[in-house]
Order: sequence, then structure tokens, then C-alpha cells
Amino acid sequence: MTRSIHRQLPDEDIIYFGDTARVPYGNKSRATVIRFAREIMAFMMENRVKMVVVACNTASSLSLTSLKKTYPVPVIGVITPGVRDAVRVSKNGRIGVIGTSSTIASGAYDREVARAGLSCRLFSKSCPLFVPLVENRFINDPITYEVARRYLAGFKTRHIDTLILGCTHYPILRTVIGKVMGNVRLVDSSSAAAEEVKATLSKKGLEASRRRRGKTRYYVSDDVEGFSRVSGIFLKEKINVKKVVI
Amino acid sequence: MTRSIHRQLPDEDIIYFGDTARVPYGNKSRATVIRFAREIMAFMMENRVKMVVVACNTASSLSLTSLKKTYPVPVIGVITPGVRDAVRVSKNGRIGVIGTSSTIASGAYDREVARAGLSCRLFSKSCPLFVPLVENRFINDPITYEVARRYLAGFKTRHIDTLILGCTHYPILRTVIGKVMGNVRLVDSSSAAAEEVKATLSKKGLEASRRRRGKTRYYVSDDVEGFSRVSGIFLKEKINVKKVVI
Repeated sequence: MTRSIHRQLPDEDIIYFGDTARVPYGNKSRATVIRFAREIMAFMMENRVKMVVVACNTASSLSLTSLKKTYPVPVIGVITPGVRDAVRVSKNGRIGVIGTSSTIASGAYDREVARAGLSCRLFSKSCPLFVPLVENRFINDPITYEVARRYLAGFKTRHIDTLILGCTHYPILRTVIGKVMGNVRLVDSSSAAAEEVKATLSKKGLEASRRRRGKTRYYVSDDVEGFSRVSGIFLKEKINVKKVVI
Repeated sequence: MTRSIHRQLPDEDIIYFGDTARVPYGNKSRATVIRFAREIMAFMMENRVKMVVVACNTASSLSLTSLKKTYPVPVIGVITPGVRDAVRVSKNGRIGVIGTSSTIASGAYDREVARAGLSCRLFSKSCPLFVPLVENRFINDPITYEVARRYLAGFKTRHIDTLILGCTHYPILRTVIGKVMGNVRLVDSSSAAAEEVKATLSKKGLEASRRRRGKTRYYVSDDVEGFSRVSGIFLKEKINVKKVVI
């Protein structure tokens, strides 16, 4: 997500916060995820950010409505942009979404598709083992293919032509999911969300006024070493990370 | 663990705390696990407990030394009792241990076997996918067998005769691990730890003075529903759970 935003908005500074001491969020309750999200928002407010992207699908699904009401800056999530992209690329209006248990159980994607007001049908499936498989580097692995075949079997009879990868970690499994699903478009919400960031800043007149290369600062709540190990799965470049207890 | 303690000490009341808002601990750092453990200890002290069992192998490995120094009550972990049991049952002195990434990386089992001062050799392997497999009910499942074969392959050439199940969740996979390992004794530390609880209470003269059936109260840090779902994997009886934010 930081890369997608940086690509769209090279002049903007980004503050990334990863709640590594308390992840995964994917099977936690709405009340707990809202509490954690508010603590992170307090950190963001201290850092005087001009807008916030909730770049975790579970946190977006469970806390976005609550956060939007509370803070004086624009807060955007990753559900709306992902659905918008999927609705745009789907030809037959039959869309699948995969995510964590809490994301799927929340019904956030169902509500968003209904709100899009089109004659789309959404089919959803939680895939709770995908995050630990990615974090433990079972990526192009026969075990991961077997898990994916199990999770995705139900989509076969639904004739979807588009599948939303509704979790930060799932694009890492793009090859596996793609091979198991066959001829289906896979939608990763990060570039659509970055477009929404750009549109929001522009609409509110909040774009960076200086023209210079924006910097990204990374913060995590657990020790830096663990994050550096996992972030290598997602990021190619070497990054500088600080720990902050929230 | 609560069942093992209740079986050994039917007159004692038990307060269980499960940090469901922040688990899993298995890949978290020492500093973070110690911080969380201290917060839980504060809750235990408020409840005026007479001793504490750190019934999580990761928390035992990373925080026990620190906790023992700080609190006015006896604090015991699950590493020492597990090693004691393994050393007792092993015939050839070649012992394996499996656990989370943080447990294995901590070296706690290596130190404990060295301290036992015997000519035992310890071989260790982290099995980070076992916890999510159990929690997602991939129990007697071909995928779990495949993961177990992968993780445990290295033990084959080590000629171990005893394997310590060094994580709360692993006894649920006893059948899978047993079939993959063949003729190897599996050691689950919970009954050995319950014996140590009994011995400690007796030594300090802290046993319950009344003779009546002890009660177990369950507390968790996330919503109760999620815990009730997962606890069904571990416990047969129906239990009463309360949420407490620490």
C-alpha cells in the first residue's frame, strides 16, 4: 500500500504504522479492532497527518464507520475502492471476495456491493490460513495450493469472473490463487485505494505544495527485527523501522 | 491445563486468563511478551491469587525469569515440568522439542535440559503453522499431516525416542504427530505442570483449607464469542467466560 501511494503521489510523506504486537486482526471482534484502531489513530493525530488510510481489510471492515465519525481528517478504507474496481472489471456481475474470518463475517463487502446499486452478486469465503501461510513463507508451495483448492472450491459452481483479494497478504498468493481459480480477474485493492487517496487530497486541496521526493517512515508496535523479517515478503527495498508502544 | 490442575487439586479455585485480543504470542518478541505478561500478572494480583501458572510455553520461555523476580507469589512455567517428564521417560537420552518460533528461538528448552545436568541431547524445531491449523480445525486433516511431515522430517535422522509438545495447542494434534513420528513418546507438559503446582502449594503450606469442589472462572481480553468457539476444541464441558480489558 505504501508503494502504491508513493507511486501515485511521489511528493507526499507517508507514516506507516504496523500493529505487530497485536496482529493478526483477522479473527478478532469488532469491539477489540475498534479499540486498537483508535489507539493507532491517536498516534497518527500526534503525528499531525492530514489523512489516514486504514490499509488493513479487517480494520476497514470493522472500524471505518466508527473512525470516520471521530477524527478531524479524512479516513478512507480499502473496501470501497476494491469493490469499485471489481464492479468495473466484472463482465457478468458475479464477483467473489476472500478475506479473514472477521472481514467476511462483518458483511462489509456485501453492504458495499449493495450500495454500488448495481445488479452484481457477491459470493464470499473466509480463508483464515492464508495469512499464516504467507508469513511462514509457504508461498509457491504444494501445501498452499492444497489449502487454496479447499477454500476456493465453492466458487467453481458460482461462475464468478472477478475475485477480490480482500486482505493485505493475499496478493502475495496471487500466482497460487490465479492458478486455482483459472480464468478469473483478481482485484487487489491497493492501487484503487491509492487512487482514492489522490482524489481525496485533491478534492480537499490537501496535496503537498512542495515538489520533492516524499519520505516513508515505518513504525511498529513489536520489536523491529520481527517486522524486518516479515516485511521482506512484501517490500523489495530495505526500510528503516522504529518501534513505538501505543 | 485448568483440567489437569482441577484433577490434581479438586478443592482449589482457578482463575484462567486468556489474552485473546493479542494472541498468538508465538512469533512476538521477548520485550512485548514480558509487557503483556506483566499486565496479566497485575490482573492476577488484583484477584489476590496465591500462585500463578504461566500456562503458555511462549510466555514461559520469554517472561518467566522476569516474572519470578517481581511478584510476591510463586510463579511457575511449563518448560521445567515438560523437560523433567521427558528426561524421565527417555531411554536413549535423545529428546526432541517442537514449539512456536519464539519459544524455540529463546533457547529456554536448551537451557533447561542443560540445567538437568544429564547426558541428554535436545533437538528442536519450530512449527509455526500448527497453531493456526488447530484454531481453524484442520485437525485430522491431510493438509495437517503434510505440514507435520514437513516440520518433523528432520527428527527422523536424530533417533529421538521422546518428543516434547512444547505449545498449548499441540496436544490437539497428538494423533497426527504420533502417526508421523512413529514409535516416539510424546510429552505434554500440562499434567507435569499440575504436579508442580501441587508440590509448590504443599511446600509453601498454601493448599485450600476447605474441602469443597473448586470453581474455575474464565476471563478473556477479546469478546467472549470468539473464545467460546475456539475453547470448544480444547474443553469438553460448557464454560462461563467474562471479558476483561487489561
